[in-house]
Amino acid sequence: MKHDTEQACLDACTACAEACERCAAACLKEDDVTMLARCIVLDLDCAAICRLSASYIAHGSESAASACVLCEDVCRRCADECGRHEHAHCRRCAKACLACAEACAAMSA
Amino acid sequence: MKHDTEQACLDACTACAEACERCAAACLKEDDVTMLARCIVLDLDCAAICRLSASYIAHGSESAASACVLCEDVCRRCADECGRHEHAHCRRCAKACLACAEACAAMSA
Amino acid sequence: MKHDTEQACLDACTACAEACERCAAACLKEDDVTMLARCIVLDLDCAAICRLSASYIAHGSESAASACVLCEDVCRRCADECGRHEHAHCRRCAKACLACAEACAAMSA
Amino acid sequence: MKHDTEQACLDACTACAEACERCAAACLKEDDVTMLARCIVLDLDCAAICRLSASYIAHGSESAASACVLCEDVCRRCADECGRHEHAHCRRCAKACLACAEACAAMSA
Repeated sequence: MKHDTEQACLDACTACAEACERCAAACLKEDDVTMLARCIVLDLDCAAICRLSASYIAHGSESAASACVLCEDVCRRCADECGRHEHAHCRRCAKACLACAEACAAMSA
Repeated sequence: MKHDTEQACLDACTACAEACERCAAACLKEDDVTMLARCIVLDLDCAAICRLSASYIAHGSESAASACVLCEDVCRRCADECGRHEHAHCRRCAKACLACAEACAAMSA
Repeated sequence: MKHDTEQACLDACTACAEACERCAAACLKEDDVTMLARCIVLDLDCAAICRLSASYIAHGSESAASACVLCEDVCRRCADECGRHEHAHCRRCAKACLACAEACAAMSA
Repeated sequence: MKHDTEQACLDACTACAEACERCAAACLKEDDVTMLARCIVLDLDCAAICRLSASYIAHGSESAASACVLCEDVCRRCADECGRHEHAHCRRCAKACLACAEACAAMSA
């Protein structure tokens, strides 16, 4: 079961990093980028901690659970901001962030 | 078709980064780590460039194809070294590296 | 001498990554972010490859010179784009990118 | 003053990441790598969170202080392990880790 929780979290982190990077890139191509500035910043924060958490889980770091605590928090901030926008990429990103936050909560429980 | 090539490469890079990090961690738990030192170094090199390439593809970087040229080269070096060892993690890693090298070659063609 | 070239390049990569990240963050706080979208994208590309190159040099990777070839190219693109804007952070970033491009050229010579 | 604390922490994180990567690479070239396995794992953990914290500080992330909490913890673990070994690279790394832990504590205070 522990192994399942880890693999699920690793996969959620990877999917979330990808969704965040796609969202940031798409935000930068929208007509009104200024309105999306905080969204882009949080996308980048979130992608970075998701990639670090995925890496920690993959190599069995003793700090993997601690990284997931930070990752959950950043994911929730990003999901909250993305949820304020109607773009399809923001919706997809918010969904991936929430799924990752849940997986991180399970990892660090 | 271009989109398929990109997504396939992104997925191969992500899978390869994970395999490399698992291989490095497992190598560090083997009885004779000294014999696996070059394998660990290449695993880490490879995981890093795979994660960068995945990130470049995900955010549509104009340098994604160039990153894949470097990624293919590092993947082939890592596959070659992992192929010298009989551990299951090295075998899995070599396979993921070769698949990633092929996907990177397609991306940068 | 080789050691000096490596240390100089590592330091230039680190300084450039920092300048790029500061520039991206500052661009996202400007009034007209839309005009700076390509600048932000290149800042992020450049910070990522600079950090990877710094890491490869620090751990003595056999692919450090190859990473510097890619790094030089991305630095020049970023310097070119930053050079089109009059913001102080763009000017500082362009300067750091050019210095890093030179150091990378020396590394991969 | 806040700006000084941030810049000092960013610089300490960058120096620590570099020391950890040099230590990991040097450990992998020692005669008895097996004895240094945990040191290598912690070096890699520590380099990764130091680079993420440096990046968060550089782009003014709202999660920079939280990242520094995790970074301080990983730095202390790495300093503790490096402190058990007499190699010059381990000594230098332990020193950089302790300095970074102090700087992170100041950032997150």
